[in-house]
Amino acid sequence: MTEPTTYAYFGPAGTFTEAALRSTSPAEGSVLTPYATVPLALDAVRGGAADLAMVPIENSVEGAVPATLDDLAGGAPLVITAEVLLPVNFALLARRGTSLDDVRRVGTHPHAEAQCRRWLSQTLPGAAYVTASSTAAAAEALATGTAAYDAALSARIAATTYGLEVLADQVGDNPDAVTRFALLSRPVPPPLPTGADRTTLVCYIRHDHPGALMQILEELSVRGVNMTTIVSRPTGERLGHYRFFIDCDGHVDDAPVGEALMGLRRVCAEVRYLGSYRRAGVAPAPAERAQADARFREAQAWLARVREEGAAY
Amino acid sequence: MTEPTTYAYFGPAGTFTEAALRSTSPAEGSVLTPYATVPLALDAVRGGAADLAMVPIENSVEGAVPATLDDLAGGAPLVITAEVLLPVNFALLARRGTSLDDVRRVGTHPHAEAQCRRWLSQTLPGAAYVTASSTAAAAEALATGTAAYDAALSARIAATTYGLEVLADQVGDNPDAVTRFALLSRPVPPPLPTGADRTTLVCYIRHDHPGALMQILEELSVRGVNMTTIVSRPTGERLGHYRFFIDCDGHVDDAPVGEALMGLRRVCAEVRYLGSYRRAGVAPAPAERAQADARFREAQAWLARVREEGAAY
Amino acid sequence: MTEPTTYAYFGPAGTFTEAALRSTSPAEGSVLTPYATVPLALDAVRGGAADLAMVPIENSVEGAVPATLDDLAGGAPLVITAEVLLPVNFALLARRGTSLDDVRRVGTHPHAEAQCRRWLSQTLPGAAYVTASSTAAAAEALATGTAAYDAALSARIAATTYGLEVLADQVGDNPDAVTRFALLSRPVPPPLPTGADRTTLVCYIRHDHPGALMQILEELSVRGVNMTTIVSRPTGERLGHYRFFIDCDGHVDDAPVGEALMGLRRVCAEVRYLGSYRRAGVAPAPAERAQADARFREAQAWLARVREEGAAY
Amino acid sequence: MTEPTTYAYFGPAGTFTEAALRSTSPAEGSVLTPYATVPLALDAVRGGAADLAMVPIENSVEGAVPATLDDLAGGAPLVITAEVLLPVNFALLARRGTSLDDVRRVGTHPHAEAQCRRWLSQTLPGAAYVTASSTAAAAEALATGTAAYDAALSARIAATTYGLEVLADQVGDNPDAVTRFALLSRPVPPPLPTGADRTTLVCYIRHDHPGALMQILEELSVRGVNMTTIVSRPTGERLGHYRFFIDCDGHVDDAPVGEALMGLRRVCAEVRYLGSYRRAGVAPAPAERAQADARFREAQAWLARVREEGAAY
Repeated sequence: MTEPTTYAYFGPAGTFTEAALRSTSPAEGSVLTPYATVPLALDAVRGGAADLAMVPIENSVEGAVPATLDDLAGGAPLVITAEVLLPVNFALLARRGTSLDDVRRVGTHPHAEAQCRRWLSQTLPGAAYVTASSTAAAAEALATGTAAYDAALSARIAATTYGLEVLADQVGDNPDAVTRFALLSRPVPPPLPTGADRTTLVCYIRHDHPGALMQILEELSVRGVNMTTIVSRPTGERLGHYRFFIDCDGHVDDAPVGEALMGLRRVCAEVRYLGSYRRAGVAPAPAERAQADARFREAQAWLARVREEGAAY
Repeated sequence: MTEPTTYAYFGPAGTFTEAALRSTSPAEGSVLTPYATVPLALDAVRGGAADLAMVPIENSVEGAVPATLDDLAGGAPLVITAEVLLPVNFALLARRGTSLDDVRRVGTHPHAEAQCRRWLSQTLPGAAYVTASSTAAAAEALATGTAAYDAALSARIAATTYGLEVLADQVGDNPDAVTRFALLSRPVPPPLPTGADRTTLVCYIRHDHPGALMQILEELSVRGVNMTTIVSRPTGERLGHYRFFIDCDGHVDDAPVGEALMGLRRVCAEVRYLGSYRRAGVAPAPAERAQADARFREAQAWLARVREEGAAY
Repeated sequence: MTEPTTYAYFGPAGTFTEAALRSTSPAEGSVLTPYATVPLALDAVRGGAADLAMVPIENSVEGAVPATLDDLAGGAPLVITAEVLLPVNFALLARRGTSLDDVRRVGTHPHAEAQCRRWLSQTLPGAAYVTASSTAAAAEALATGTAAYDAALSARIAATTYGLEVLADQVGDNPDAVTRFALLSRPVPPPLPTGADRTTLVCYIRHDHPGALMQILEELSVRGVNMTTIVSRPTGERLGHYRFFIDCDGHVDDAPVGEALMGLRRVCAEVRYLGSYRRAGVAPAPAERAQADARFREAQAWLARVREEGAAY
Repeated sequence: MTEPTTYAYFGPAGTFTEAALRSTSPAEGSVLTPYATVPLALDAVRGGAADLAMVPIENSVEGAVPATLDDLAGGAPLVITAEVLLPVNFALLARRGTSLDDVRRVGTHPHAEAQCRRWLSQTLPGAAYVTASSTAAAAEALATGTAAYDAALSARIAATTYGLEVLADQVGDNPDAVTRFALLSRPVPPPLPTGADRTTLVCYIRHDHPGALMQILEELSVRGVNMTTIVSRPTGERLGHYRFFIDCDGHVDDAPVGEALMGLRRVCAEVRYLGSYRRAGVAPAPAERAQADARFREAQAWLARVREEGAAY
């Protein structure tokens, strides 16, 4: 009998991250443990307390999640094995008996506040905003009576988890807002390529070398590898020193991506591979992938003949 | 008699931002008003309540300050007219009678917590961390007895401002940590070039166009303009849609920077100019600047002769 | 009464170059004088003996005409004011009484030989080839009885000029072969832009600088200027030192071409402008030209506002 | 007993090409056969009549030798296995009894005329120039009395070969003039890398694709491969359609050159490999070569670990 899989996730229970994890249909018997911070959830995997960790990695309104990126760039290596996209749906929750007119102070996580700012200023123009460590923590504090606010902006499912009422639903300013979550593992070989894959990297440029960022982009473009995201984060060493988190289309086993990675390895001060995995929400194009690979293989065969025979007919 | 200059700054009193503002030696009689958030300080300038606003823009550990960048990218235009670099010096403050051994919970701003994390885990391994809206607010709450923590990580000067004791000084993990502050104004012509200037921009790339970021870098590099920082921030529209904050060496009145800006204007979906100003901590190189400008002027004169006479001898 | 225009052309009479010149419909009373070599025809213009000179510049089979390019790159500057495209139509000419079977030796210019090689080896497999200084000179020598060959490969019109018979017509291997001729003048302002213009340049790269050629191409591409031809010719100084003759779409008065030329002037060891003129065989696209210019003008106006007011709304 | 090696060379005897061939010290018993044209010499190798052919490939004054390049680009593949650099030393030769004052007409090959033009116009201002098929042919015709000129510009050794007198020596305008010769073979594996190697290619760009030439240069530069020469030659298909002969530093067995060649193979319409061989006149830098190769091998090993284990420590 195999051991059940143990999952860490950025908690508490009732956050979007739990919803993201459940959307991957964990096998029955799996153990799902919330952790108070992203670094704690990731360290649970590094230390062996969990097999996998689900954490938020990017939000369409607030952008990359710094705590996740910075933690992945440092410490023992982890790799992304899957990604999940989840629509963001905020609700204003309160204890039974509270009406909208009673709300003077609203508690929530800063990212949630940023995503509901327009709605808040229109609906509750006089209300103050109180910082909470997560949207679920805001709901929980409200339920347990320890909160210094009257209502919480949370995921709708937190109403059930904590026995609260929904004063208003779908209150996010951007109805298309979506969050991207990543499932992290200790280093393992990547899943098989599907024709709709993504590869994630951290690149440290050589700061003594002007044009270093352009050189990175050229290593990708010259092999026809499409970069989908580039996010800068400070290295913490000096003002103006950034490392770059790069998402590109394709799988590390694809010939173009492989050759581009070798190029990055040569021109960067450091490259950390963060995984190749199936892109969420994108239809696979295995024919396109096969075509690009075939072009690389043909060129390899041609070069081999040139080297062995002095010509290729 | 001229009106005294009025300054807004990211407060409360006793933060690093006030220290940055005071380092510019405001004229006697100037009015310095703290604002609770960066957007409020900037809106004070936009609305005319203040002439200038000092806000943090980048930190060597935490990187760009999102609230500042995002506010500058939206709303009515503001321009940076000066920058200030300030070493970051954190101290652990407490009320009289508290010793290090008594500290169970520490309140501070998340950026400060991030910059003292190593010291905290070594010196106060069991202590919990409580979020405050600023390092000065943490000190103030401690002083007024409303804090849910025993000590505050703040700028050292907050000890004086709020009558607290210094339990430990210089507790930042990186002794070279520095913060960059910007002085913002309603649009005005830039200060005169000095030979050690910086120009700041926000560029929105065309997302339907792969290679758009590389195109931006080429517009700079082809004119020999050195990019010193590039920071990505989400536009808030869609996952993976970022705008780029770019710092480059040189002044908008310099011929190379001017031509590069026109190029960016043509290839970007949108460019917002955020000011040309004297770089802090860099010696001016007016000869170099004059040389680059001379090359551009010589080429302009040559082209004019070619157009008028059909040749240039 | 104005003086009649005097034309020099690469002769003798009866060559393709004369046909090219006549295709431009010189005004009645114009004087057309053949010169024995391209340099002599060009020097006639430089010295004032002629107003304009027609010379071949590029052939679709043999490529650029070295004598023309090298002469234009050195000596006193000349500019191209018009170009002519002419289909190449070779005929085998002989004196009355000679039949194909009698032909043992064929005289012609090496370029003509190269363009009829397949036909010659199929039709006259045993015939020897004798070098002549031009296709017309070959016909003339045949007519005057001084030739060491039995037939001449020439332009068809040489049959009339020299009283020869046509043994075979249309004998060129490539029925689409075409030659491009240029009309050269002492430096004059370029003709007005038409929306279908070409600009010709000679660029000398800095040989101490790897990547210098790529830099040249970038100066064009970054402004959206399309290079149609690039031809290398040795500078004569050292092995491997080449100058580059570049044709690009557009007119020196067009904003994109003007800015690109200034860029080339800055990065090249030397740039010589060889004229902007109407492209032969291409329909004008004035709307496209206006659009590109408008983008440049808009960016100029934007930059002017930024420099004067500190922002552009 | 092994067969003696048979050499073809661009003749006749007494040209610079024979001198170049003899400078390689052919083994005793080798057979050296002159051919009237470069294509004939190369076809002798293709057809098996000769093992190797020596032909001129580039001249520091006249540039690439078109007949050689065009022949190498077409027909059955040949590869360069060695190169020779030879200083060009022209002498004016005449029959016994002729003095400089008697010379009215000078016969020589057009390339030689171009390289002595200044000397001719100063020393023999009134003399006419008569085309010959080679400098040696000019001397031979003079010796046999069939020449229509009084003196020949030839290699000095032709005086001995044909029993002529030297009227003037070292008459080339450029005392540093040098010609590069190539030794060609039917396809064979390249000689071992030496750390001072050159690789020669013909690249056909995709003409429907603006920026195609820049793409070629990028495939080289992104791998740090230094291009030493690029020469354009018409494909003969259409006006403005050129193929490019490229010399670059390094050996096809070097990892950077190999990867660059695969890249060219993918982006070009066609690539023909013309050989990797020891550069003449350049000191080997095996340490540099080993370093570049090591960087590529390290990156390959890193990628292999990433693909197999999901991380590389």
